[in-house]
This record gives sequence, structure tokens and C-alpha cells, in this order.
Amino acid sequence: MEVTRTNFKDSLSTVYSAIEEADFLAIDGEFSGISDGPNVSALTNGLDTPEERYMKLKKHSMDFLLFQFGLCTFTYDQAESKYVIKTFNFYIFPKPFNRTSPDTKFICQSSSIDFLASQGFDFNKVFRHGIPYLNQEEEVQLREQYEERRSQSNGSGNPSYISPNSNKGPGSIPEEHREYIGRVVEKVESLFTTSEKTKGVLCDDIMGFQKERYIQISKVDDEERKRRERQKQEREQEELNDAVGFSRVIHAISKSGKLVVGHNMLLDVMHTIHQFYCVLPEVQNTHHLYMNTVGFPSYDTAQEQLHEAGYDAFITGLCFISMANYLGTFLTPPRAHIPSQSKLIQPFVNKLFLMRIIDIPYLNISGPDLQPKRDHVLYVTFPKEWKTSDLYQLFSAFGNIQVSWIDDTSAFVSLSQTDQVQIAMNTSRYAESYRIQTYAEYVQGRQQVRESQGHSTQSWDEDGWVKPHYTSPSTVGAGPTGYSYGHNRPSLGKRCVSPIQEEQPTEGEAQRSHADGWSGYTHSHTHPDTGSKKIRTDGKDTHTHTHSDTGSKKIRTDVSRGLWV
Amino acid sequence: MEVTRTNFKDSLSTVYSAIEEADFLAIDGEFSGISDGPNVSALTNGLDTPEERYMKLKKHSMDFLLFQFGLCTFTYDQAESKYVIKTFNFYIFPKPFNRTSPDTKFICQSSSIDFLASQGFDFNKVFRHGIPYLNQEEEVQLREQYEERRSQSNGSGNPSYISPNSNKGPGSIPEEHREYIGRVVEKVESLFTTSEKTKGVLCDDIMGFQKERYIQISKVDDEERKRRERQKQEREQEELNDAVGFSRVIHAISKSGKLVVGHNMLLDVMHTIHQFYCVLPEVQNTHHLYMNTVGFPSYDTAQEQLHEAGYDAFITGLCFISMANYLGTFLTPPRAHIPSQSKLIQPFVNKLFLMRIIDIPYLNISGPDLQPKRDHVLYVTFPKEWKTSDLYQLFSAFGNIQVSWIDDTSAFVSLSQTDQVQIAMNTSRYAESYRIQTYAEYVQGRQQVRESQGHSTQSWDEDGWVKPHYTSPSTVGAGPTGYSYGHNRPSLGKRCVSPIQEEQPTEGEAQRSHADGWSGYTHSHTHPDTGSKKIRTDGKDTHTHTHSDTGSKKIRTDVSRGLWV
Repeated sequence: MEVTRTNFKDSLSTVYSAIEEADFLAIDGEFSGISDGPNVSALTNGLDTPEERYMKLKKHSMDFLLFQFGLCTFTYDQAESKYVIKTFNFYIFPKPFNRTSPDTKFICQSSSIDFLASQGFDFNKVFRHGIPYLNQEEEVQLREQYEERRSQSNGSGNPSYISPNSNKGPGSIPEEHREYIGRVVEKVESLFTTSEKTKGVLCDDIMGFQKERYIQISKVDDEERKRRERQKQEREQEELNDAVGFSRVIHAISKSGKLVVGHNMLLDVMHTIHQFYCVLPEVQNTHHLYMNTVGFPSYDTAQEQLHEAGYDAFITGLCFISMANYLGTFLTPPRAHIPSQSKLIQPFVNKLFLMRIIDIPYLNISGPDLQPKRDHVLYVTFPKEWKTSDLYQLFSAFGNIQVSWIDDTSAFVSLSQTDQVQIAMNTSRYAESYRIQTYAEYVQGRQQVRESQGHSTQSWDEDGWVKPHYTSPSTVGAGPTGYSYGHNRPSLGKRCVSPIQEEQPTEGEAQRSHADGWSGYTHSHTHPDTGSKKIRTDGKDTHTHTHSDTGSKKIRTDVSRGLWV
Repeated sequence: MEVTRTNFKDSLSTVYSAIEEADFLAIDGEFSGISDGPNVSALTNGLDTPEERYMKLKKHSMDFLLFQFGLCTFTYDQAESKYVIKTFNFYIFPKPFNRTSPDTKFICQSSSIDFLASQGFDFNKVFRHGIPYLNQEEEVQLREQYEERRSQSNGSGNPSYISPNSNKGPGSIPEEHREYIGRVVEKVESLFTTSEKTKGVLCDDIMGFQKERYIQISKVDDEERKRRERQKQEREQEELNDAVGFSRVIHAISKSGKLVVGHNMLLDVMHTIHQFYCVLPEVQNTHHLYMNTVGFPSYDTAQEQLHEAGYDAFITGLCFISMANYLGTFLTPPRAHIPSQSKLIQPFVNKLFLMRIIDIPYLNISGPDLQPKRDHVLYVTFPKEWKTSDLYQLFSAFGNIQVSWIDDTSAFVSLSQTDQVQIAMNTSRYAESYRIQTYAEYVQGRQQVRESQGHSTQSWDEDGWVKPHYTSPSTVGAGPTGYSYGHNRPSLGKRCVSPIQEEQPTEGEAQRSHADGWSGYTHSHTHPDTGSKKIRTDGKDTHTHTHSDTGSKKIRTDVSRGLWV
């Protein structure tokens, strides 16, 4: 179902009840760009910490606009053994609702726009009919404006607006307007002298269709006055609701406490909070996010309708169902349907997939992040003329290596064996053109620099980016290595894919009625075996490129998609 | 005529010859926004100098995208006594043409986008089918890339690209590829051993439709080799031309030396240079602009097709013809048709209209700017709670004043009589909450601050903007005064509208043939009297608002229109 400004208000109750009855929700966003830095590879170093990645995205991705929001609700029908699915495709645009409202500026990235355009994305629908929104601070400001105006018109507040020409006293009336004003004064005075003593005079500030303003003075009794005041308050409340717009859907998702699944959804979650809630928190304080999220990595699917947010959310939900049911196959006896509330799902909740990080599969928003050993990693600085091949030559004695470029003059080099780190360090002792540090030394050095700059240990606001006008092909991708990554990887994925508890039937699986005449996608899905072979919980296949061309095409797709794939 | 990426190449010769045969050209641009500062009134202080205005626009308007360019060519047909008019509406978008090309980011301003959307602007056409472009620096970089690649393939240059896995020596072949590689080597070797001694072996790096790359090795004789090299160079030149794209039209306009007219065109000219030529010059160095421009202020017209750049350019040209012919009525005997090359036009050439500046009607791009006396102007600083009404009260003893807000705590106040400046200064001597300086003192103070900061006298990079989230209604507009502006204004306009020389017939008015079957607008226009009453050369009516509401609605239109009206 497509939702624009035109049908938003009429659709809202449908959206609310779809959320309310759902077992879980899938979301997806389309953005006007990904990175306002020079390139995506710099945004996604393979050895970022979760904190670093989050801070990079906060710094370099939040000025883009989330302009399409896909929501798909999944409700399990016990009797039919299938899910009832409702898909909403919201078009979002910060149309200023009056002349004092925020005039939002947002960045567009040509490659992202071009990609969406090539997929048939309808920009006219966004810009002409997008649903407005306010974040919480803007909503509060607007509410205060309304309240201030109301208290003024009640005569209880300070009249803070003085007409410029009043000189804080009665204005002088230009000659040519005197007759007209005189007639108006007479009319108003006559209202006070009529016989209906029970009635008072009510003064209203009205704006006409052409935005012309006039004052309406009417004689009303107490009941009528109260009725009009109620009417006005209702009208104001409706205006406020209209301005809050799409944020109301996000509030409803948040309040529902339902499980929200997304595909590589870190950026989606960040944009959703940033655009519809508040300034993004420091990464340490993310416990006040209200969504239960399950992120998971990429899938191959048919290309047809992809990159429409609603359809992507739909596919994402199907994948989640497949994966949940796949977990059911490990039970004794195997179970065909695993509900979203199952304990089997718990290990994955509030873990957001981190794309292209070698050894940390997810950002944990409800607990401490993983801290893998990186004692096989070296931090190397070198002249800016160096290419990847120079690094391969330098470390040719140490077997397979993996290069993660940081900028023009530095990179992380991961050796395949930790015991060779000391040898590499010794070899470099007398080198003049380059310099090697262990990862531990590098982290310590950064820490010292930060502390000397007066930053707390929690902030991270320097990512050492340079801004070349043309992207150097050699820095595209996390390192065009072609080498397999042979060292012992921390076995993080294991506890995730191996359920360790017997499944218990859960509550909330009562039969629910279908919404009749529903026009969204529907899909019967019990225990498919497609896709499950591709489950990745360690991000392995998403960061290793076997050829620099393939690698850069892959990145290109990622950039263009408007969402990490 | 609509021109997109789809028909650009086919239309180019039509565009070129239209420019070539034209007597003059009219242009107009539509932008994705106007100001990335807090509001337009701060961008257009009524007492800006031309330099200040230019630097403000350079700083706060150039990150928007000019995404529609209207060009209208006007060719006078002597025999028919009418103009032949050809209108082109170009859609522009910086589609990245390969993976090393610039990935342009541009800002969109919601109010501008919303306004264009409400006018039926087709964003899909821009983003799906917009013509790409390069500025001169990008063109040079791309040309160098091609040349470097060519010199490499000729074996004459340094092979600067080494495959990452080569370790600067022959690569090792993985076991599974040995058989295949062996067969390829055999085939290549056999090429050397055939009997055709006159032929050599040619090695080509080819990219397929799926962007897969392969090496093509063929045996060719000398003639064939040369033919293929020629072909390749032609192909590369065409790729280069495609990438330069719309900039070629701007080059053609520039080379033609034809008169270019525009409506309030400062921002159009700046965007055109910035986007299709080069970084904008410091204002003192604008003599290397290649366009002969004639800017002029606003008109009221029927609203139907406005805000499509091509139509706006068309209307602009018609206005120019009206105004030129109006000048002809002052001649003895009056003349009905004044050609664009006429000396009567000369006083207006290279003067760009400055919107909402009280006493400087235009920026002169081919000579020194006007420097009006501002000895009736005071610079006032005050607490941020002050509103316009407080300034009126403060200066109530001095008759009519005009307030030009600078920021929350300062404004220019223009008195109606210069001899009252000293009295106002004396009155303020013991004031604590506010402070008054003469305009001369203010200019001197700024100058000193700049010099102490090591800036040259030519730079201007501080505009004292604050960034409130909500625009305060009281700062919208150059000052909601309602007062007429009574002091003696320098009579700048006079020499402009009073032709002082007898008109001489000029060259280049030979009869030209019509382009048959032309589908653009045509218009017979000899000596209309509509519009001429509204000629403004002093900008007076564009900055004085008689009411704060009207004022802000007017500004809103300006912002939204994507072009100063």
C-alpha cells in the first residue's frame, strides 16, 4: 500500500492496527545518499570498532534524507499456518508547514540518486506528495508556539508580539482609511449595546484561503464561546498532528514494543532516530532506543521490485521467517514454525549487522560490544605514492596478508599468523620510508592524542579522511587482495546459529483474522529451504573481494542502493 | 524544446546553430535551493555592498544544483519585422560516468523543492534523464586519464598500474587455472609463428556490456593497426564529449560573444560559472567572465507556465525586447525596433541586478561598482530580545526610518535626514543597552578586524550569521517598515533610462531564414506597451515591504522560486 501526504490521515488507523496485531515488523529505508565523505571504503574500514563505525555514519551520513520508508507487518495465522502480510510504502518529505517552520536542507549524492532513478524510483511522488514529519524537539517547539498563542488570545499571557508600527501605543490611522475604520468601530460598538445581556463578544484571528488575515468579531453566549474554543483547540491539535506527520508511525512502532527486523539495518535505524526522534546519542548511550531490532546480512534475490522500501521490507521479513524456521530444524523433534517471540531468536535481538568489518559481526545496542583480539594486525604508515602492491611486497615474507586502507598514507595489515608480528616489527626497525606499529600501540597512541585534545574517551570525531577529487581505484574496497583470510577467527558466530535451549511454545500465537480485501503482498511461508544456505552471521563474504574490479563494482552497487547491502 | 540525456547529442547541432544565428540569448536557471544559511533576509541585507552580496551567495548558494537551464535564442527577421524565437529547456544532472568520476553531492532546500513541486516541476526527468556535465578542471583531469592510458598502451609511458597480486614480478597461477592459461598462451604464441610476416600483434583492453574486462589479442597489419587506433581515439573523444555534456552548450554561448539577457540573473550567472566552468573568482577579478550580460528586475506575468526555465528565459527575452524598443521611443524620430546590438543597450551591459539593495541597483562585472554615500545610515547593536518595534521607538524622534536587520543583535537604521545622524549619535552616548555607530565607523571597524585577522582587504568571509532553528518572523524581510524612503537617493538610474546618443543602424541585422518546422515558441513583437511601465532600474519596489505579512509572503515566493524574483 502506497502512503503519501494525500492518503496519510485516512490510512493511519489501518497502519496502527496492522502494527498492533502484528507478531513482528520489517522495515527498510531509501536515502538520498550514503556518505558525504570522499568514498564508501573510507567509511567502512575492515577493522573499524563498532563505536568508530557508528560515529563515522553519524558524522558522514545523517545529512541525507530518508525519503521512503517501508514497513511490512507479519501476523501469523495459526489456523491456516501462514503469515498475513501487510506492506506500507511511505513517501517522506519535510514540506515546511508554515512560514516559521524549519526549512530543512538535505544532501543528495549523485551516485545514489542515479541508482534509484535507474530502478524507477519516483522522485516526483516524494517531492510532491511526501508526508511531512517533525522530530520531538520540533514538535515541542510547535506545541509551545500554539500554547503561547492561546494564552495570548485568552489575555492571560504577555503580549509578546507588538506590531512594528504601533510604537507601543495606539497607531495613527492614515487619512484614506479613517472612514473605513470608523465604520468598523461603530459596528463593533453596536455589538455591546444590543439587548442580549447574556452574550459576550468574541475576537478571532482568522486566516483565509489566500492566506489573508482578518479579525472576526462575533457576539456569542457562554456555551457558544466554549464550543468555539473547543473547536479551535481541536483544529490546532489536528494541525499539530499533521505537522508531526510520519513521525507518528515511528512512535507507534516504538510504543508497540514489537520485534523490528531489517536488512543490514544500522543506517536505517540511525536515520529513523535522527529524522523522526532526536539527535543521535553517543554510542555508549544507545540503551534508550525503543526498538527491538534484529539485523542480518545480505541476500541474493530476484531484482525486479527491489529498492522500493516496502518491497525490501517484505523480502526482509520473509528472510527472517526462513531463518527463524531454519533454527527450528535443529530442535528435537524439528519444528516447522518458529514464532518471532521464540527464545531461539533472542541471541540475535538488538544486534545490528556491521558491514565489512572483518572480525566484529554486529553492533550490540543492548550490551557491551565484542572486542576481538587484533594481535595479528599491524598499523603501517608510508609515503602517499604507495599502492597495495607495495604493501604486498613489503610483507611478502609473511605469507598471506589482508590490507585495510585507512587513508592515502596508512593502512592496517593483517598477518595470517600472530607469531610473525614480532618478526615484522623487528624488520621495520631501521626503515625510513615506512613505519609499523602493533594494533595495541596504535590504539594507545590514538587514545593519548584524544586525551591531550581534551576529548573524553567516549568521543570519536576524527577519522583522518582526505578529500581527493577523483577516487583512486586502488583504495576502493576494503583492500583488493585476492587472498583468503587464513588466521584463526574468533568463533563469534557459533553461539548465534546453534540454539542451546529447547524451544518452548510461547504466548501470543492465537489465531488472528485476516484483514479482508487487503491489497498488499501475501505470502504463505512455512519452511523454505531457499536462502538458508546463504546465512552469514560473521560478515565474511561481505568484505572479502577476490578481484579489485569485482570489488569496486560491488561497492558501487552498495553506494547506489541507498542502503548497505 | 526539451533536451535530456536521451536526445542531447542529436539536438546539439540545432542548439549550436540557434546560438550562432541569434541576435541575443536569454537564459534562466532553476536550482535545488537558494541559501544554506538560516534565511534569505540574512542573505540579502538592504545595505550589502555588491562585494558582500556576491561573497554571501558564493558562500551560501553554490552547493545547490542548477538542474534546469533555459535557453531562448532571439533572431530578428528584418523582412517580417519579427523575432524568430527558439527555446530550449535543458535538464541537468551530474550522473557519474564511470567509477573514478566525481560523485557530486548537492544540497536541496525543502522550501525550494516544495515550491517547484507545486509548479509541476518534473524531478524524475532531472534525475533519470538529466544531461551530465564537467567543469574545466574535471575535463582536464579526465583528458589526462585518457592520455595516460593511451601512452601506457603504446608502451611509451611508465606503467603506473601494477596488479596488486603481481608482487612486481610474474604472478603465480592457481592450480585450477593452469590448464586454461596454458591454452591461452599457446594460442597467443601461434600468432607469432604464422607465415604473414607483415602483420604485428595488437593487444587491446576491452570492457564488455556487463562491464567485464578482457584482453583481445589480434594479428593485424600496419594499416589495420592504425585504423583501430584512430577508431579508439575517436571513441575516447566521444566519451570525453559525452562526459563534458551540457558544459559544451555553455562553452558555445561563451564563444559566441552574443548578448545574454536574464531576469535578476546574478545567481544564474554564478551557478553557471561555478557548475560548468570553474571555481568562482574573487569579486574583483570578474573581468574574465565571457558573457555579455544584461540583468534586469522583476515583472508580473501570467503564472501559468512560469518556473520552467525555458519558458522563463522566453519571457525574459520578450521583456528585453520591450524595454529595448521602449528606449527607441525616446529617439527623434521614435524608432519601433531597437536591435540588441544597439548603442542604446550599452549602458545596461554587464550590470547584474542586485535584489533588495536599497541604493545600489546593480553589480558591475566590467568596471568599478557604485559607492553610494551612506552617511544617513547608522549601525546599531542591541540585546537579542529587541524587535523592530523597539528600534522604531528608539528613533521615534527622527521621523521615518528604515531598518535592515543584520542578525539577532544588530541592524542598519537609515534615517530620512542625514543632518539628524549627529543628534542620534549624541543621544546614544550614555546608553547602556544599545550602541550606535555611523556607517563609516562600522566599515572602518570591520576593516580593522579583517586586517588583524590577516585577511586582505579583498576577501569577505564573515557574515555574522546565527543559526536559529525556527526563523523569527520579525527578521523576515529587509525590515517590515511601511515607511517610504525619503532621503535623497543618488540618481543612478538616470543615465540608464535616458539615451544620450542618437541611434545608429548596426551591423548584423541581415535577414535570416526561419528554421522550418521549429516547434518552440514563436512570438511577433514589435513595440508593445505592456510591461514598460514597470521598468525598474533602481530596485526600489523590490525591497520595500509595506506590511510584514505581505513582505514575508513575497520573500517566501522568492525562496521557493529557486531564483531571485
